[in-house]
Amino acid sequence: MQNFNYQTPTRLIFGKDVIRKLPEVMASIGKKVLLTYGGGSIKKLGLYDRVKELLKDFEIIELSGIQPNPKYDPSVLDGVRLCKENDIDVILAVGGGSVLDCSKAIAAGAKYDGDPWDLISYKVKAKAALPIVDIITLAATGSEYDCGGVISRTETNDKIGYMDPLLYPVCSFLDPTYTFTVSKKQTAAGCADAMNHIIEQYFCEDSTLLNDGFMEAGLKSLMVNARKCLEDPEDYTARAEMMLDCTYGCNAIYSLGNSQSGWPCHGMEHALSAYYDITHGEGLAIITPRWMKHILSDKTVSRFVKYGVNVFGIDSALDDYEIANKAIDETYSFFESIGIPMHLKDVGIDESRIDEMAHHVAENEGLENAWSPLYENDIAAIFTASL
Amino acid sequence: MQNFNYQTPTRLIFGKDVIRKLPEVMASIGKKVLLTYGGGSIKKLGLYDRVKELLKDFEIIELSGIQPNPKYDPSVLDGVRLCKENDIDVILAVGGGSVLDCSKAIAAGAKYDGDPWDLISYKVKAKAALPIVDIITLAATGSEYDCGGVISRTETNDKIGYMDPLLYPVCSFLDPTYTFTVSKKQTAAGCADAMNHIIEQYFCEDSTLLNDGFMEAGLKSLMVNARKCLEDPEDYTARAEMMLDCTYGCNAIYSLGNSQSGWPCHGMEHALSAYYDITHGEGLAIITPRWMKHILSDKTVSRFVKYGVNVFGIDSALDDYEIANKAIDETYSFFESIGIPMHLKDVGIDESRIDEMAHHVAENEGLENAWSPLYENDIAAIFTASL
Repeated sequence: MQNFNYQTPTRLIFGKDVIRKLPEVMASIGKKVLLTYGGGSIKKLGLYDRVKELLKDFEIIELSGIQPNPKYDPSVLDGVRLCKENDIDVILAVGGGSVLDCSKAIAAGAKYDGDPWDLISYKVKAKAALPIVDIITLAATGSEYDCGGVISRTETNDKIGYMDPLLYPVCSFLDPTYTFTVSKKQTAAGCADAMNHIIEQYFCEDSTLLNDGFMEAGLKSLMVNARKCLEDPEDYTARAEMMLDCTYGCNAIYSLGNSQSGWPCHGMEHALSAYYDITHGEGLAIITPRWMKHILSDKTVSRFVKYGVNVFGIDSALDDYEIANKAIDETYSFFESIGIPMHLKDVGIDESRIDEMAHHVAENEGLENAWSPLYENDIAAIFTASL
Repeated sequence: MQNFNYQTPTRLIFGKDVIRKLPEVMASIGKKVLLTYGGGSIKKLGLYDRVKELLKDFEIIELSGIQPNPKYDPSVLDGVRLCKENDIDVILAVGGGSVLDCSKAIAAGAKYDGDPWDLISYKVKAKAALPIVDIITLAATGSEYDCGGVISRTETNDKIGYMDPLLYPVCSFLDPTYTFTVSKKQTAAGCADAMNHIIEQYFCEDSTLLNDGFMEAGLKSLMVNARKCLEDPEDYTARAEMMLDCTYGCNAIYSLGNSQSGWPCHGMEHALSAYYDITHGEGLAIITPRWMKHILSDKTVSRFVKYGVNVFGIDSALDDYEIANKAIDETYSFFESIGIPMHLKDVGIDESRIDEMAHHVAENEGLENAWSPLYENDIAAIFTASL
């Protein structure tokens, strides 16, 4: 087991109608609120009106229109400007992971005098950040329980994951009923994103019975509950369990003490959604089984065996490579069964920029340090196999 | 799934020689330290000298001699007095769960003007507490990652579990090498305590695939690793995994959103160790299988089936009650196999005070609200079956 230093200070307030406690939580932090949200789905949900009513005694400035794969320009820059102009005390992010990721970048940028990209690109370490509270409307990224975010910069095709312990939300409100109206496409993509968070951590050099059991439980729970959510979008129990499954995705609790895995699929997917602005979870689902095939080797096969036997119930008496290949096929089939387009061509990506993207990933994502190292030719091969 | 409100703000610094970071952590909190410890095992370990050397620039007041099943009088009262007399900034607890539990009571009492028992008995809600840092030398209670403790008051045979969110340690240092010298008896008792923490949460009305998987992984990991620790006390990997297994025991992460279980075995065991001062983990191991037999019914059998199949690998094709009874027998056999005395008579308890203890538990522990309610006659029957 590796040494580790772990803290997730975020409070989770989870369940039906828990946002009634929003005024009390916000009052303990500050009066001037930057309310951040996306394209307006929170208005359709009635959540926008509810939040405004609950916070009628607060001063609220709004930043709307935050897009999936949230953009540095204009969203982060606008948010930072609004915080500085209005002397904001706290950011309230209402939406999915993109709104929250963007809000984290704003929170850091608001307390920094220079170009916020300095922070996101790790050129400068943030010294302070505004506190963040969030209300999550999509089960997927786990951003509500971690200190990271991913920001895209269109002109350079950069999509950067940045983390800073200053950016743990103070409090995350998780009401599963807000996810009842999430589309089948986004429900499936959220499941794939959360599954990939676990898979990225699972495939590493050494893990424990405890962590493996946690991760296998997370994967099985996601598969069972995503199917239920797709069958009956208002199945509260399934939506709730899926929401909690997703929450643990990226705060490291699934892999405390494990060797580092390098998060290779996220590294590769960042290029896909930076160059083509595709849905992140779909990109991950497409890449993951091809990455698995690519890295399957005598070094890695025992992890695939464990994954296949414990997650998919494959007969442990079979040959190791047979189990491994079946496990990869099951992974592919599951994603396909929940309606995810399983080829890059299905999401508008052809071979034309594969070499460019592979070069970009190889230069920027550090995947030569992944458990199973990936170099430019490996990345290009995985992209090509995903076409 | 039930609504929940969860936060565990404690930082875990885990691994070999992590206490080199102690001065940095302590310096961020204060200069005047109450160092609490037990009977001197930390001196044999060399840990006492190491801590004193690391904190040579701090002002240190000591409270030693804290016993297992820590006592209100003298330990808590002495600690509170020392904190007040010396204007202590922070408590550093070095030892097992008893030292830390006692330190939590001291931390609350130090900031309260009245009798600290008012706080422990919930007559008064604490408004503040001293910050606590700990260095754990025994894998068992999980006190390093929760906000509770258990304090015994000899003259009234009270052993009270109290909790307050003010009492989460700021930082817990977990170095598995400090547990290399833990005796076989205490290693086994620690395993039983930690297993019972999970079992108490597992047997409830409704759980999730996710939580069940977490708990089943915790139980399997504890059994495998406790055996390894008993075979080779210096097996770092086994000691490390067992330490982390224990850490999650009581902070609720194993059962977020589950129905309440009522912690019946702990309620009953508190009387045993209050009246007879036995080792807590041994008392739990003795009671648990008898409690299981007592509550097995048409209402509860399906949980026993899940437990038996997923934790012990019992054939799911068998009859439900056959699986349940096998699972209970396996629980008993495991505890016996790691050397735990499995009868109350083995630990010096006969039938003479069973009725008195059962009455005390029924009056004080609220077990009529447990998942499978226990009244005075049930409690007496479980004690009698445990003789």
